[in-house]
Amino acid sequence: MSKTNTQIKLAKRPVGLPDESIWNIEENEIPSIQEGEVLVQLEYISLDPAMRGWLNDARSYIPPVQIGEVMRAGSVGKVIESKNNRFEVGTYLYGTGGVQQYIATDGKGWIPVNPGLAPLPMYLGTLGMPGFTAYFGLLNVGKLKEGETVLVSGAAGAVGSIVGQIAKIKGCTVVGIAGGTEKCKYLIDELDFDAAIDYKNEDVRQGIKTHCPKGIDVYFDNVGGEILDLALGRLAMHARIVICGAISQYNNTTEVKGPSNYLSLLVNRATMQGFVVFDYAKDYGTAAREMAGWIQSGKLKSKEHIEEGIENFHETFLKLFNGNKRGKLVLKVSE
Amino acid sequence: MSKTNTQIKLAKRPVGLPDESIWNIEENEIPSIQEGEVLVQLEYISLDPAMRGWLNDARSYIPPVQIGEVMRAGSVGKVIESKNNRFEVGTYLYGTGGVQQYIATDGKGWIPVNPGLAPLPMYLGTLGMPGFTAYFGLLNVGKLKEGETVLVSGAAGAVGSIVGQIAKIKGCTVVGIAGGTEKCKYLIDELDFDAAIDYKNEDVRQGIKTHCPKGIDVYFDNVGGEILDLALGRLAMHARIVICGAISQYNNTTEVKGPSNYLSLLVNRATMQGFVVFDYAKDYGTAAREMAGWIQSGKLKSKEHIEEGIENFHETFLKLFNGNKRGKLVLKVSE
Repeated sequence: MSKTNTQIKLAKRPVGLPDESIWNIEENEIPSIQEGEVLVQLEYISLDPAMRGWLNDARSYIPPVQIGEVMRAGSVGKVIESKNNRFEVGTYLYGTGGVQQYIATDGKGWIPVNPGLAPLPMYLGTLGMPGFTAYFGLLNVGKLKEGETVLVSGAAGAVGSIVGQIAKIKGCTVVGIAGGTEKCKYLIDELDFDAAIDYKNEDVRQGIKTHCPKGIDVYFDNVGGEILDLALGRLAMHARIVICGAISQYNNTTEVKGPSNYLSLLVNRATMQGFVVFDYAKDYGTAAREMAGWIQSGKLKSKEHIEEGIENFHETFLKLFNGNKRGKLVLKVSE
Repeated sequence: MSKTNTQIKLAKRPVGLPDESIWNIEENEIPSIQEGEVLVQLEYISLDPAMRGWLNDARSYIPPVQIGEVMRAGSVGKVIESKNNRFEVGTYLYGTGGVQQYIATDGKGWIPVNPGLAPLPMYLGTLGMPGFTAYFGLLNVGKLKEGETVLVSGAAGAVGSIVGQIAKIKGCTVVGIAGGTEKCKYLIDELDFDAAIDYKNEDVRQGIKTHCPKGIDVYFDNVGGEILDLALGRLAMHARIVICGAISQYNNTTEVKGPSNYLSLLVNRATMQGFVVFDYAKDYGTAAREMAGWIQSGKLKSKEHIEEGIENFHETFLKLFNGNKRGKLVLKVSE
């Protein structure tokens, strides 16, 4: 157990793809707790594409991380000291702990998780925000119906892999888009997708045409850019496009590429809708119970990509954008 | 009354803004009718931005006009011969008569209109497709609620002027975008809009900020392009964008400008939805009755811009794109 608290703070705002100079690594004292607080030793932190947005000084659904602040991150950790009667020492919690090893908190916004039911990293993935994002995005925003054709981009990622599996559970035809032969093979062989399109080696337009012969009923978009345009070009009537993210655009230094084919919404009486998972917080419990059931019955597979060492944060962060990961990206920060 | 049937046919497909060479003008014999048909003498034809789309050889909500075919157009005319017991001689009908002076038809898709209740051109505007487009687009797609802020582009046009007025009737704050001082004055002085933004002479971004201080709840988009992006930049939470058209893009010879700010849909949990008015055909009667009531009580003003002479079709058609019109553009084709 570390005697100091290593923290990663934002040193300056990035332009384009962040380089290591935007971070400061500091070793500080482990914080002491006040009455009503707990000290949480963070074990795993979550790496998510949304982090890139938090680095920009722009109005969004959440304020940006400020210069000099500890980088924001979801995390799971263990209560090692408590002056709060809600949480005993030894309790495992999920909360926004940040990229550091210890945090003192009054516990607001933190929820207990049970490492006996599922491995801790899974609470940052399938049983956490990415899982909830997939669940509510597909079912509440996408209004998925049995028998429909679902296309998902970023399909081997934390959100996309769950989107596709839930769509299969709901009786849909599922086509995933991912980068590389290995990821595509994983989608079909392990996650039971009906088809996979390798955007690095295949003609995506042709792939969509081949695998969605009746058009796309629900397109769950994690990537934006050219692939969003190609999906717009193959919509079925009354299609729904769920805008979850746009990882292809996050490091742009020029204007975001807007979807030129958006008038396909008109021709096909289709809808493009954005959402933020936090809005569904009151129903997280329901979603978690249903997904835990699917995991136990083997219908839903959860894959975590675990890296180790808080000093490797930047390199791990880059894996979000260079595609060198499969499943939910997590960093073990405890020693 | 003409002894021949002047017809405007499509000679070739345009690239960019159409020039006169894409049309052939022909004088042909007035068609004779078969059993079950009527001969309609067309009095007015409707000029609509959608016509530009029908000239392109592309998959859309309706097949393109073919080379050598009479140009498609909505029309009102009078039955002057009948071998169909549904329609007597003297009946006025609305239907897709095309850019010509006479048509022989079995009457399918044609509906009677009453020139005693409203002037004939109004059946091509407020009491026809543009009116229905405004009505269903705003109420069914935009799901307008009392007290909301509505922004409409192309606000002095056939659809936009009705959108704004219906939104006022429904108790909303209405901001219109139009080109030129005169049109903006018209929106405020005659149509009772709360504010107007002159895109030719004002900073539209600033105008939207000033007049929609709480953000836009419903944006009814007739124009696309830069203005759609500016609207996306000022959405209120849970905003709805109704994609009705994109006249700024119809004559593009390069790729359509997609809305770069579309990720605002995510941040604001907003929806962008397209529609085609034909889908609401079964409810046209309801809409027509309600709008006729508003017209009679003086709440809804209908303005038609009437040009004369089928030989002036091309010049009139260009007014759709150069802005030299106010209200519903109609061409009188009878002599």
